[in-house]
Amino acid sequence: MTNTMGNIFKITSFGSSHGKALGAIVDGCPANLKLSVEDIQKELDLRRPGTSNLTSPRDEKDNVEILSGIFNGKTDGTPILAIVYNKDNRSKDYSEFKNKPRPGHGDYTWKSKYGNYDYNGGGRGSGRVTIGHVIGGAIALKILEEFGIKIISHVTQIGDIKGKAVSFDSIEKNVLKNSVGASDLSVAKEMEELILKFKKQGDSVGGVVETIAIGVPPGIGNPVFGKLDGDIAKGLMNIGSVKGVEIGYGFDIVNKRASETNDEFYIEDDLENEYVNHKFIENNEKKAILTNTNTSGGILGGISNGMPIVTKIAVKPTPSISKVQNTVDLEKMENTKIEIKGRHDPCICPRVRIVTKSVLAMILVDHLISSGFIHPNNIKKSKAMEEC
Amino acid sequence: MTNTMGNIFKITSFGSSHGKALGAIVDGCPANLKLSVEDIQKELDLRRPGTSNLTSPRDEKDNVEILSGIFNGKTDGTPILAIVYNKDNRSKDYSEFKNKPRPGHGDYTWKSKYGNYDYNGGGRGSGRVTIGHVIGGAIALKILEEFGIKIISHVTQIGDIKGKAVSFDSIEKNVLKNSVGASDLSVAKEMEELILKFKKQGDSVGGVVETIAIGVPPGIGNPVFGKLDGDIAKGLMNIGSVKGVEIGYGFDIVNKRASETNDEFYIEDDLENEYVNHKFIENNEKKAILTNTNTSGGILGGISNGMPIVTKIAVKPTPSISKVQNTVDLEKMENTKIEIKGRHDPCICPRVRIVTKSVLAMILVDHLISSGFIHPNNIKKSKAMEEC
Amino acid sequence: MTNTMGNIFKITSFGSSHGKALGAIVDGCPANLKLSVEDIQKELDLRRPGTSNLTSPRDEKDNVEILSGIFNGKTDGTPILAIVYNKDNRSKDYSEFKNKPRPGHGDYTWKSKYGNYDYNGGGRGSGRVTIGHVIGGAIALKILEEFGIKIISHVTQIGDIKGKAVSFDSIEKNVLKNSVGASDLSVAKEMEELILKFKKQGDSVGGVVETIAIGVPPGIGNPVFGKLDGDIAKGLMNIGSVKGVEIGYGFDIVNKRASETNDEFYIEDDLENEYVNHKFIENNEKKAILTNTNTSGGILGGISNGMPIVTKIAVKPTPSISKVQNTVDLEKMENTKIEIKGRHDPCICPRVRIVTKSVLAMILVDHLISSGFIHPNNIKKSKAMEEC
Amino acid sequence: MTNTMGNIFKITSFGSSHGKALGAIVDGCPANLKLSVEDIQKELDLRRPGTSNLTSPRDEKDNVEILSGIFNGKTDGTPILAIVYNKDNRSKDYSEFKNKPRPGHGDYTWKSKYGNYDYNGGGRGSGRVTIGHVIGGAIALKILEEFGIKIISHVTQIGDIKGKAVSFDSIEKNVLKNSVGASDLSVAKEMEELILKFKKQGDSVGGVVETIAIGVPPGIGNPVFGKLDGDIAKGLMNIGSVKGVEIGYGFDIVNKRASETNDEFYIEDDLENEYVNHKFIENNEKKAILTNTNTSGGILGGISNGMPIVTKIAVKPTPSISKVQNTVDLEKMENTKIEIKGRHDPCICPRVRIVTKSVLAMILVDHLISSGFIHPNNIKKSKAMEEC
Repeated sequence: MTNTMGNIFKITSFGSSHGKALGAIVDGCPANLKLSVEDIQKELDLRRPGTSNLTSPRDEKDNVEILSGIFNGKTDGTPILAIVYNKDNRSKDYSEFKNKPRPGHGDYTWKSKYGNYDYNGGGRGSGRVTIGHVIGGAIALKILEEFGIKIISHVTQIGDIKGKAVSFDSIEKNVLKNSVGASDLSVAKEMEELILKFKKQGDSVGGVVETIAIGVPPGIGNPVFGKLDGDIAKGLMNIGSVKGVEIGYGFDIVNKRASETNDEFYIEDDLENEYVNHKFIENNEKKAILTNTNTSGGILGGISNGMPIVTKIAVKPTPSISKVQNTVDLEKMENTKIEIKGRHDPCICPRVRIVTKSVLAMILVDHLISSGFIHPNNIKKSKAMEEC
Repeated sequence: MTNTMGNIFKITSFGSSHGKALGAIVDGCPANLKLSVEDIQKELDLRRPGTSNLTSPRDEKDNVEILSGIFNGKTDGTPILAIVYNKDNRSKDYSEFKNKPRPGHGDYTWKSKYGNYDYNGGGRGSGRVTIGHVIGGAIALKILEEFGIKIISHVTQIGDIKGKAVSFDSIEKNVLKNSVGASDLSVAKEMEELILKFKKQGDSVGGVVETIAIGVPPGIGNPVFGKLDGDIAKGLMNIGSVKGVEIGYGFDIVNKRASETNDEFYIEDDLENEYVNHKFIENNEKKAILTNTNTSGGILGGISNGMPIVTKIAVKPTPSISKVQNTVDLEKMENTKIEIKGRHDPCICPRVRIVTKSVLAMILVDHLISSGFIHPNNIKKSKAMEEC
Repeated sequence: MTNTMGNIFKITSFGSSHGKALGAIVDGCPANLKLSVEDIQKELDLRRPGTSNLTSPRDEKDNVEILSGIFNGKTDGTPILAIVYNKDNRSKDYSEFKNKPRPGHGDYTWKSKYGNYDYNGGGRGSGRVTIGHVIGGAIALKILEEFGIKIISHVTQIGDIKGKAVSFDSIEKNVLKNSVGASDLSVAKEMEELILKFKKQGDSVGGVVETIAIGVPPGIGNPVFGKLDGDIAKGLMNIGSVKGVEIGYGFDIVNKRASETNDEFYIEDDLENEYVNHKFIENNEKKAILTNTNTSGGILGGISNGMPIVTKIAVKPTPSISKVQNTVDLEKMENTKIEIKGRHDPCICPRVRIVTKSVLAMILVDHLISSGFIHPNNIKKSKAMEEC
Repeated sequence: MTNTMGNIFKITSFGSSHGKALGAIVDGCPANLKLSVEDIQKELDLRRPGTSNLTSPRDEKDNVEILSGIFNGKTDGTPILAIVYNKDNRSKDYSEFKNKPRPGHGDYTWKSKYGNYDYNGGGRGSGRVTIGHVIGGAIALKILEEFGIKIISHVTQIGDIKGKAVSFDSIEKNVLKNSVGASDLSVAKEMEELILKFKKQGDSVGGVVETIAIGVPPGIGNPVFGKLDGDIAKGLMNIGSVKGVEIGYGFDIVNKRASETNDEFYIEDDLENEYVNHKFIENNEKKAILTNTNTSGGILGGISNGMPIVTKIAVKPTPSISKVQNTVDLEKMENTKIEIKGRHDPCICPRVRIVTKSVLAMILVDHLISSGFIHPNNIKKSKAMEEC
């Protein structure tokens, strides 16, 4: 239950920052999905460090290999093992951190739980374990693509600089035009400078990342304890450094009144509406049901309503900073100080943006299967596929 | 996976607003816990409607019965079925809602998923299903009590009125002194009036509820996909009307820098410190490790660090309002209007406050067992018990 | 994980022999299945004691009530709670057994695990808990009926008396003609007499029960750790008193050679063949693939092949006997003797026969859903239903 | 749920006969267990082919590598990935089998489920996937060793040749003295000759393998649906070619009477009794409770009673034989014939014997953790360890 995510489309992740390899097994991927190494590599390349002045300079290609689960270029229903061998795990001396837990990191809590912790680059507590997330996510994204579902993500805030809302199309285009991954290009430069300012100070800063799924059919998710928003909240909160999750209006809904937030339903005759996914329109229907606002972020009663699923996360300032910090010596049980040298991301939002897409994609695929939209074993037999 | 919560300490919930009964089975409760009907009734009484002018006037005692799992006044390791028979399910005519989904509710999404929905008082989408949550929570709270862990909750915001922070002791006392469940008594009256104002207008309002666990030992939770904060986020988001979850500083952490938010560790010699739970101090230790701030809300790397676990949720305005609203006729596929008469809560924060305590309690017990602090089968054999 | 069975179609069972009630919650039953109290009562009546001279004389009607999950006569996708209140739990004094575990029963092992055990009529270790199994099974059988899948069961051996093989049709008819539930009427009387002989001696005897599913489509089950035969073996072994499980030829396959047991495939043109379930024949197919023998019992590589699924269990002699037996006093830690008076089944095969049907039905429904044959949420949307 | 086994100590298996690699991830192994590559290699070497004239001549060393989960020679609580890269997957032409399912194999059923199957050497349906089982088992066996629990296994029957019962000590020694893995040396040669006779005929034969765990403390397992015997039955039945599972007397219990099979309890003063595991004797106890017979195979009411856990499986004749066999052409939907050339095991019992040990070991470790005997996260904190 600790390193596995999902009920039917399941990913089991493994590996640590400085071990021999990292990666994931995806079990429960339906057979007959075309899948290549490039499909996964593409997403990993977006996630990897060293791509701009905002990320840590660990120079590693993160080349992925698929070791099982593909037969004649397609998934065959068996577990897909995809792996990235660590190369840049230079034998730096981390022994200083052996008994001195880094503030803001999981060192001390891992010690409490396991009686020990891997003090080399954070071990399995490192952000590098999201390689596993992205492997699973790349496969999920490939499935969603087949069904006309799209996931976009962007940075909406760095420190106290907030971007303005732009259209879905603009989000998709603009995030590629700046190293922050912001969609509001009017503040992207400012955000970048803020990050670099903190970097220079040996400090770091947080931000907000919004991730949106478009084209999800109404009817996925479950009531009570298996809600789609519950699973999304868990999936996003489980990403390292995330301290808050919002669906739809999130905390902004608090000082509104129901007559403003009830998202009234209406009949949409124009099926060219960008929210309508034609793959999931029942044969003889000419109309769709939509809501005129989307404060709920596409989920009502734990189940999707066909509107875009909108999520936001709060990302804390990266805890690895080069300033001297107070901590304790776990062996001597006394106060001490620590200085963390080396490679740090002064803000991980640009990279987290790739991970949230993966996490949301995996959750959606899991729910699309468990709600009967995608066939659990053979993607060709999925209802939406047959109708094409 | 839909009506069951927990991995080891598991609750399976059942029932609907206007059906014959509601309740829950708790499976995985260790044997030899003293448990009476009163232990559960006490919490249900705090949750039930009709207790103030802020809640819906459904006049129902919600008397609980325990039908299995107790032997000679103690749990015996077998499933505990606790049930509340519905009495006030007067045969009001709800048929108007049969094809007209209520905005902001799950009617339409349930229809999409199941091809049908129970249009009587919201069916299983009703807030009344939290009777099951509170049954499970009451048992979990009883267990936590045995181990010196306390959970407190309070309303910190209604609409745009925010309460100021007060001490843990004051939270516990003050929430009982006002019908809102606020801890800042200087704004409690104002909050109440705001709720009543919206009620008068046939509208409703949202708020923020903070729930805190004190005395949780360091070392519960898991890395990667089984994080304690992930499970809490899921558990809280799964409560109806919740649109956001925060741990520790939540979204406020975004515009801070790491040197402010890294929660530096220090050695606490004074074991009278209120955060230290003596039940979990190892035999010969005379010191505890604490942090000088708690921006992380007691969780690092998905595992508890011994500091208070601090959570906040955003609660949306109750979607049941008496104003006329636009919706669609699902049969005729045309636009129409709807008017929801009857009993509504103009703000559910005062009652959600009881449910969050239950949810957090259940999650903690589940993790305390799975992390080896509480014996899975026989509470007497728990490490912390033996040492007393 | 202890009182819940199934992955998607899930039953959580509760209650004990002398508690207030027994029953089960079924979660994950697709919506829109017509379901009445009678559907469940019918199966419970077959299971209940007191129906012949071979079963214990506990005179209890086992009237079931459905308390949730049904809306307008159909399942609505929410948890179905069905309950039987105990009536005949007369306050007999069982305190003698408090520290003296009954041989062959779970008393001692429960004590080891939970530090205590319910010594009243076996508590939750009683055969009476199979009321929960049969509730879940009755619902599963109702679903299977919709899809043309039939389950039959019969007693093939009592003590050393073995019945000869008869046709499926004869099994179905003959089991109703004798109190043993045997299909070979030429030995049924003899079996009955053997049971009564042991009863008279204050002893009991075991037997073999065969349970067969006809009409299961090829393609349900999973490879490696989620095999259909693995799940069946678990489900059947979990029934009290079962000490062995066989699929197909079982232990008889050991002294055969592969050329005798390989079940060669052939094309069956005659779709009137009783093994072919027309509901699952693809639209334009005029032929089915069958095997000319069925040593594998309908399962290859953990997945159904379309042939009848054939299972056998070994049932031990009922451990409750009236002879004086040696045991220990758990408090005094010394040897002692025990005499169990009261109501016993001298052979539980006639009643286990009803439970095996239920268990097999639940497993098949779970796999039919998880393999895409039955829609997980709305039975009307199942592929086999649409094609009718 | 398909390629993962276990609830807490979990193994996820991957790979196929002719793919790039096979292996397993073990998640949930407590930290601080000393573990080396040799610990796993040792068991794999016992399982691998080519070790005698009774096994297939595939000449492959099956060298295992550990890619994650070990820190400074010990487990660190993170997932352990152990992998065997395939070397001897020579590009033989298997395309003949593309549309012609091999009788007795899973080809046809996989095709039914996934719309396709890997026809190269059986793909993931190959016995070679038990490399994953043995990896997980080797780690579990290492844990059991720490707690003084021993697992032994032996072949008791090949075809119609049955071995006589010998002592536990003799089982352990004798299995190493013959290529069949039999414990009764008086028939081992005869068994070997029978296998070779069938091999010569291009045919194969089945057998019975008994696997026994000694030193399991009373109190592991669960009631109703989580029984230890249920989990064992599932685990063993899930091994390829297994058609029957017995616990204790199994099917032989059927024609006994309860007064013979009730396993009466008695106080054992002699703690040198080989069944008593001193690690689990409570501090001040000088006596143990045992039974004078063990027809139940160490399990009562689904929970261990401290006696040896005794299991037997029926293994079918290996379906891969070189005789010409009837089958169908799945594309042309017509009858055809098939001839399977190449490497076959004429009897897999000698190798299955290693796999059953692994499976039983994993199940026991899972239950020892979930029943509170082994600490879930830190093996050093286990109760039985502390007391040493």
